[in-house]
Amino acid sequence: MSLITLTTDFGVGSPYVAAMKGAILSINPAATLVDITHTVCPQDIRHGALILADVTDRFPAGTIHVAVVDPGVGTDRAIVCACLGRQTYVAPDNGLLSLVARRAAPGLLIRLADPAYWLQPVSATFHGRDIMAPAAGWLSLGLDPRRLGPPVERLADLEWPEPRATEGRVEGEVLAVDSFGNLITNVPGDMLTAACADDRTAVTCGAGRASGIVRTYADRLKGELIALVGSTGRLELAIVGGSAAEVLRVGPGHPVTITWGRGNRVLTPWPQGGC
Amino acid sequence: MSLITLTTDFGVGSPYVAAMKGAILSINPAATLVDITHTVCPQDIRHGALILADVTDRFPAGTIHVAVVDPGVGTDRAIVCACLGRQTYVAPDNGLLSLVARRAAPGLLIRLADPAYWLQPVSATFHGRDIMAPAAGWLSLGLDPRRLGPPVERLADLEWPEPRATEGRVEGEVLAVDSFGNLITNVPGDMLTAACADDRTAVTCGAGRASGIVRTYADRLKGELIALVGSTGRLELAIVGGSAAEVLRVGPGHPVTITWGRGNRVLTPWPQGGC
Amino acid sequence: MSLITLTTDFGVGSPYVAAMKGAILSINPAATLVDITHTVCPQDIRHGALILADVTDRFPAGTIHVAVVDPGVGTDRAIVCACLGRQTYVAPDNGLLSLVARRAAPGLLIRLADPAYWLQPVSATFHGRDIMAPAAGWLSLGLDPRRLGPPVERLADLEWPEPRATEGRVEGEVLAVDSFGNLITNVPGDMLTAACADDRTAVTCGAGRASGIVRTYADRLKGELIALVGSTGRLELAIVGGSAAEVLRVGPGHPVTITWGRGNRVLTPWPQGGC
Repeated sequence: MSLITLTTDFGVGSPYVAAMKGAILSINPAATLVDITHTVCPQDIRHGALILADVTDRFPAGTIHVAVVDPGVGTDRAIVCACLGRQTYVAPDNGLLSLVARRAAPGLLIRLADPAYWLQPVSATFHGRDIMAPAAGWLSLGLDPRRLGPPVERLADLEWPEPRATEGRVEGEVLAVDSFGNLITNVPGDMLTAACADDRTAVTCGAGRASGIVRTYADRLKGELIALVGSTGRLELAIVGGSAAEVLRVGPGHPVTITWGRGNRVLTPWPQGGC
Repeated sequence: MSLITLTTDFGVGSPYVAAMKGAILSINPAATLVDITHTVCPQDIRHGALILADVTDRFPAGTIHVAVVDPGVGTDRAIVCACLGRQTYVAPDNGLLSLVARRAAPGLLIRLADPAYWLQPVSATFHGRDIMAPAAGWLSLGLDPRRLGPPVERLADLEWPEPRATEGRVEGEVLAVDSFGNLITNVPGDMLTAACADDRTAVTCGAGRASGIVRTYADRLKGELIALVGSTGRLELAIVGGSAAEVLRVGPGHPVTITWGRGNRVLTPWPQGGC
Repeated sequence: MSLITLTTDFGVGSPYVAAMKGAILSINPAATLVDITHTVCPQDIRHGALILADVTDRFPAGTIHVAVVDPGVGTDRAIVCACLGRQTYVAPDNGLLSLVARRAAPGLLIRLADPAYWLQPVSATFHGRDIMAPAAGWLSLGLDPRRLGPPVERLADLEWPEPRATEGRVEGEVLAVDSFGNLITNVPGDMLTAACADDRTAVTCGAGRASGIVRTYADRLKGELIALVGSTGRLELAIVGGSAAEVLRVGPGHPVTITWGRGNRVLTPWPQGGC
């Protein structure tokens, strides 16, 4: 298997990404490289963790995913190789793998410690190029991960906001905004089976209120705010043909409330203004 | 042949593109993936159609082009596999292939209908990942397109603005702005053979007026507005070392007039201001 | 060897890049393509030259690097194939290779002159697609560069600002700003061995003053201005967790001064305001 993906916060068109690719291909010229994204918000470990959790399991079993969102580069934070589910990850152990780890079957966890597999001299500021990319190159050639260093017990964890459910009501929050301006929330679709079946369900976020949970964008007219269970399995809010993030002026961290059935009999404070 | 290109409006660095790549590579790990662009203006089918028409025939015969600009995702719009000229396309049948289809020899047209070739469960909002990417993966393995569904008679069409020619005069419009700010028009160079040979030819657009049709950017001084037949065979307007779109403040849909020979004897209203 | 990289100023998502890739793959469908960057500042030859010098030698020996920053396209500026160090370059001879050439062992220099290896008809405005991409395609198939045209004596050169060193003092300038807002200077780390060992070293740029030269970003608190020798071996200035370019409002060309030891006994004018 020689498929390697890259996920970083280096920005669009960053030559630093190219330097990592050069480092990988210098070890395994036959590696196939795929960019997941390089527009993780700078140094936003949570944002990177979310993207890894949503996308990496779409890849074939045995894919090697290198992820670099690494504000602690050069400190004593560890770099790990983690076999999680059917995939292999190489990343700083700063929480970047925490959301993947919650969902996937745990496997081998190794701390990268043997400098024989590093690019020399190792810089103090770019371990993505000097340690992680070479590790991925060697792994893609079939190297046993245990050659890279000693096992570790567990990965660093991050707090993740959990949605709270009561009867007829779920309270969650916006996790991310996609390139269409859709608001992706932390509420999984399977918490909303009853809500989806109830056409009086209300989804509120900021000054916006969506009526019912629809199946797809084109189910409502252009300009309407809608709620639906999106392609990653999470509840999202969208404006048909527009940007919900711009119209509602909300972003990550903003609360979202879903009410249905009995939950709607409780008086919900009505948002001012509307959208 | 295992070359697959991707064209979407998902935006720079979108993890949705990566999810499509994962879906393709899960079916054919040996596929070669090339991004055409992911910066089609959101939901702008015409913009996507133009890029496909200008770029895809640069690829080797047999390349599979997946194109996703799909505001009607989840509705009853069809998804098609279309063999046009030497290339194979997989796209929603919403006009996205209409400009390619006008130019290329028509071939097999298939409606994607057999769920055996889809990623299950199929989401209602991301057929690019769940239907189109897998179809491309199977086709790149050599699957006969007729296995994907029944034939269709014709593709959906889009209205395209046609340039109007009279003696010594062509009226067209701006179709797109490229990353240099050059204005790409709908006027093909072969309508302008006489105009190119006449050094009194005038090209006007907004407040700008270019004198003559030059051969290349460096034929005039920095800051001058020029007209030339660009690399896609269309007339374009450019500011040497600058951005015509910014200076003239015009964009797609803006009229462009070319006059020469007898056409210049008719009094042309002179643009106010200049550039 | 069939690894080809691309570096251009065509912008993010430019279909012009895809047209070049199509041209290469039409000649060598087995070529592996890697983007270095397409966000070189438009027509900024110096910026492109810097990226090529910093990144290309990270790739395996024999990689072919196509670089297109070409304001003189269609004029009599030459296009060259240059073997420099372990790498092969195809680029307009306008200074784009000048910084690579200063560092690498010189090898064969060829002017692309044989139209048999060009895409016909050759446009006047896009030699990247019509001449350079095909040349890279043929070279990746093993074509002897001498088949492409006659040898040339030397490459076009560009002036590069050199840092000036006196005892305890170096004066340099900012060369580029990376996507984190870090200011990359023209001062090589090996000019600063004594400065790195002196904790009273001062680095000033605009209204900012960094104390000492640290090893990595996390050595200081969030919001502090720091100076360090970055991953390309150059001195850089950064704000921990922020953007030095935004906070200091400086960019390429801005002077940077490093003083230490005896150099600090000379009264340095103290910047007003600080950062």
